[in-house]
Amino acid sequence: MTYAAPVKDMLFVLKELAGLEDVTALPGFEDANLETAQAVLDEAAKLCSEVLAPLNAEGDRNPSHWKDGEVTATPGFKDAFRQFADGGWQGLQHPVEYDGQGLPKVIATPCIEMLNASNLSFALCPLLTDGAIEALLTAGSEAQKQRYVPKLISGEWTGTMNLTEPQAGSDLALVRSRAEPQANGAYKIFGTKIFITWGEHDMAENIVHLVLARTPDAPEGVKGISLFIVPKFLVNDDGSLGARNDVHCVSIEHKLGIKASPTAVLQYGDHGGAIGYLVGEENRGLEYMFIMMNAARFGVGMQGIGVAERAYQMAAAFAKERVQSRPVDGSAKQSVTIIQHPDVRRMLGTMRALTEGARALSYVAAAHDDIAHHHPDEAVRARHQAIYEYLVPVVKGWSTEMVNEVASLGVQVHGGMGFIEETGAAQYYRDARILAIYEGTTAIQANDLVSRKTVRDEGTVAKTLLADIAKTVETLGGIEGAAAASMRTRLEQGARALAAVVDFVVVNAKRDPNAVFAGSVPYLKLAGIVLCGWQMARALLVAQRNRTDDPMFYDAKIAIAQFYAEHILVQASGLEASILAAKGGESVLALTEDQF
Amino acid sequence: MTYAAPVKDMLFVLKELAGLEDVTALPGFEDANLETAQAVLDEAAKLCSEVLAPLNAEGDRNPSHWKDGEVTATPGFKDAFRQFADGGWQGLQHPVEYDGQGLPKVIATPCIEMLNASNLSFALCPLLTDGAIEALLTAGSEAQKQRYVPKLISGEWTGTMNLTEPQAGSDLALVRSRAEPQANGAYKIFGTKIFITWGEHDMAENIVHLVLARTPDAPEGVKGISLFIVPKFLVNDDGSLGARNDVHCVSIEHKLGIKASPTAVLQYGDHGGAIGYLVGEENRGLEYMFIMMNAARFGVGMQGIGVAERAYQMAAAFAKERVQSRPVDGSAKQSVTIIQHPDVRRMLGTMRALTEGARALSYVAAAHDDIAHHHPDEAVRARHQAIYEYLVPVVKGWSTEMVNEVASLGVQVHGGMGFIEETGAAQYYRDARILAIYEGTTAIQANDLVSRKTVRDEGTVAKTLLADIAKTVETLGGIEGAAAASMRTRLEQGARALAAVVDFVVVNAKRDPNAVFAGSVPYLKLAGIVLCGWQMARALLVAQRNRTDDPMFYDAKIAIAQFYAEHILVQASGLEASILAAKGGESVLALTEDQF
Repeated sequence: MTYAAPVKDMLFVLKELAGLEDVTALPGFEDANLETAQAVLDEAAKLCSEVLAPLNAEGDRNPSHWKDGEVTATPGFKDAFRQFADGGWQGLQHPVEYDGQGLPKVIATPCIEMLNASNLSFALCPLLTDGAIEALLTAGSEAQKQRYVPKLISGEWTGTMNLTEPQAGSDLALVRSRAEPQANGAYKIFGTKIFITWGEHDMAENIVHLVLARTPDAPEGVKGISLFIVPKFLVNDDGSLGARNDVHCVSIEHKLGIKASPTAVLQYGDHGGAIGYLVGEENRGLEYMFIMMNAARFGVGMQGIGVAERAYQMAAAFAKERVQSRPVDGSAKQSVTIIQHPDVRRMLGTMRALTEGARALSYVAAAHDDIAHHHPDEAVRARHQAIYEYLVPVVKGWSTEMVNEVASLGVQVHGGMGFIEETGAAQYYRDARILAIYEGTTAIQANDLVSRKTVRDEGTVAKTLLADIAKTVETLGGIEGAAAASMRTRLEQGARALAAVVDFVVVNAKRDPNAVFAGSVPYLKLAGIVLCGWQMARALLVAQRNRTDDPMFYDAKIAIAQFYAEHILVQASGLEASILAAKGGESVLALTEDQF
Repeated sequence: MTYAAPVKDMLFVLKELAGLEDVTALPGFEDANLETAQAVLDEAAKLCSEVLAPLNAEGDRNPSHWKDGEVTATPGFKDAFRQFADGGWQGLQHPVEYDGQGLPKVIATPCIEMLNASNLSFALCPLLTDGAIEALLTAGSEAQKQRYVPKLISGEWTGTMNLTEPQAGSDLALVRSRAEPQANGAYKIFGTKIFITWGEHDMAENIVHLVLARTPDAPEGVKGISLFIVPKFLVNDDGSLGARNDVHCVSIEHKLGIKASPTAVLQYGDHGGAIGYLVGEENRGLEYMFIMMNAARFGVGMQGIGVAERAYQMAAAFAKERVQSRPVDGSAKQSVTIIQHPDVRRMLGTMRALTEGARALSYVAAAHDDIAHHHPDEAVRARHQAIYEYLVPVVKGWSTEMVNEVASLGVQVHGGMGFIEETGAAQYYRDARILAIYEGTTAIQANDLVSRKTVRDEGTVAKTLLADIAKTVETLGGIEGAAAASMRTRLEQGARALAAVVDFVVVNAKRDPNAVFAGSVPYLKLAGIVLCGWQMARALLVAQRNRTDDPMFYDAKIAIAQFYAEHILVQASGLEASILAAKGGESVLALTEDQF
């Protein structure tokens, strides 16, 4: 099964919904415009569909494997990574001064979607390298930036994030890895890190591990964690590689999916101590790691969207070919392609509506991030930064939850064939399942949404967004047709539900935290459904305006928006009810531990 | 991970909700009563937890394998099957005259749930044998019954269903296998059958294939299909085994889950023709196969419930052990077991509420089936038969859809460990995914619910059930407490939604079939949610009445019922809206094929 990047859809979102031209007008983006975006997307589409997509099933059948501490990637991956790096793709959104392309995040984002759609396991390596680059650019010394960032951008080296330990998953307060200061200013690192994605491999000549560990007198809990650079091979002053460092991959995991991507257990310091270099200040490691994690969280959201698109394309292609059963309306006497059956339409419609909604929201979020970094006016930057930060847990949480449903429907459309591994639909179902877990589970995203993004500002950002949604609802009122009417009704109901929940969260977070957190994931889902629905509504308005230019394209946008309203937005009331009607999460918390 | 059959919960449902004592009072069930039920369930629980459950992970790691036409089951399965057969479990609900135990279906049903919970792959073999027995008992000649049924009941032989061909999955009109009449009254069978569960194996000495094929002058489509017995080894007149028949397993599938259960491609007649024997009359094969399928569909519903229970038990056990993060309400300064976090509660509550609701509905359905077969009054039999038939697609469709969510939450509760295969949670997620596909996809169940179960009787049975729900709602009105109040509100809303949808279906099925079928799966889900919710409400009423007898047990029932009302029943309005508000499925059907 091949993958065709939906470049036309992507450009539609960039131009009409994410305000690409506003972004490219910002200082620093003078060289970017709609034509640049189109050219970049076309090139990325080529690499992804021709080089990476064909390796995706191979990676599942023939995963990366471990032997004597060395990990060999799936055949073909190393060459593909070279093509990826040589094309400059790792540096797409990174600064020109470190050899990056300096493009806006809003242009990089569709490329990252494609990368993940074409080959999720492969894409994880650049995703983590992106995170390492972000962390170094933010918290590293100038010497560290000069030493590591250009090599990471060139793909000569790759990066990892080392947070998790056996006893410390979501709970980083429990991190135990130790960092002992040495006379020369370096540290010796000791400890075991697990779940380290691409923690060992043969696709690049060095690996730059960013590692959380505690210095000897560090306070307990998350306030005593520092961040260290621990390269697999030490780096000489001239940039050449030196001795092998004391970090070793003792095993890789046997996983449900993303099998080509090695998930390493890394042992630090078993042979005297791994040499590490402090990044930034002591005890501020978690703060720096959050920079990396926030970038990675947004990236994981894009993974959900990418896999969803791929699963949709495969299911739609199958539905157009597979002949089975006569139409229910008696319009043919013979069996027909299953795409003619209403329930197959409903499944494909659900897959596509969820995917398009999440795509639109994520590109819009990326534009906010660009404005937050590049707008000359500080107040404007702050406003967009706040919106972006509100949207990150929603993009991550919602896109990764919805992809489980989308990939499951992809299996279902295939019927019995969907359960046979050779078909390929099952791989998306398996691969997708990690996305709502890593880089913070959905519950962790929801905690972030509740605490840092809603309660801290007393719902200010959420209400700003709701005010914008109200304007869209009003505009819809002036538009003719069933689609606009349906969207108006459902978006208004959804927004009302979201507003009520935001109020509930703000009022009760301190007074009755258990009640609020019992509804935190439903709140995140509600926010995802309504905010994506809002983007679908905006798409509908554009499509109504432009439809005579390209009726086939815009009519589809109108129909999918209507579908979203009638099949996805309608779920808002149920979520609202389960958050609010449950009187303080009563039934969630009623059972004693023994009653489970 | 072990499995403890929830015998106490099962007996509660049997006694308080399914009316076990009404069933055991029927003619033919004189030997059965609550004590019998308890004894049978305890024995089944022992076999399942001690013998079958420990083989479940082994079956996943070491699937059945094919070599030169022979299939060898996972090590341990053959012995386990012998214990199962020797214990008389295959004959539990089959007639005493053919060496069965003659117990009511309502007692057999929890045993079947346990079997599937303990080892889904294993349980498929008896499930299909049950179907073969049912078909032979209904449509076979007396000689055929005598020859095959006791051997199937003893487990010396096993049975299969052979419907699917590469071009004929859901659409049996496309079946092409041929049956050529021979001078001696037998037939020669030619063709390829795929997806034949336990179609070849070494656990029993013979396999009785029931095969759909066409005789030479048969009409086209489903009206020209006949049913044949094709034993793997021919059977001599004295019951001993004769020559190997010309049916051969040419390969088995590489699947997402249920890996221990071989899914065979069977080739009939490549060496001159497989000897087959007509069952019943020519061209009535589909009708007979439906008997087998209806039994199997109900059984697949039980598989969903079984796997859901197992996934729940595993997740709850993990949540009680895993220590991670401090409580959100600040009630402890240290990290606590994750079961103390509200979102983990919400996930476990969802898993349990969905499982308990589906269990209750399925046992209630089984009791209707018993009454439909054993009540002395024909009118009573007919009434219960109609209710049972309405419930079969709901039990099958809803239990197998909900288990995907339950198994997914099971993975989620485990966090990163859930994605690692050794943990075991991922196996349930993979295994469960076939259930909404085989024995008729959810869409096929929904078509059945719409056409044969709702439109044909103009909603009569559905309205009977709704009238009973209204009585439960009324009773809830007289009960104090938040749980009853919440349940009353949500059940009433749910029933109103279901009533509106039933009316919509009845009125529009002929007038606008595409619109109705665009909402058929949402209708099935709505029916599942409301009917299971009704059982949870009935459980709540019993628990309120009895709570002082066993507060820990009954309080949990009350809390889970409230949870069901506030987290599951609340979804009814969204489903109703997507069926009704969509004006004839407009947005489902709006796109042309090229627009996908």
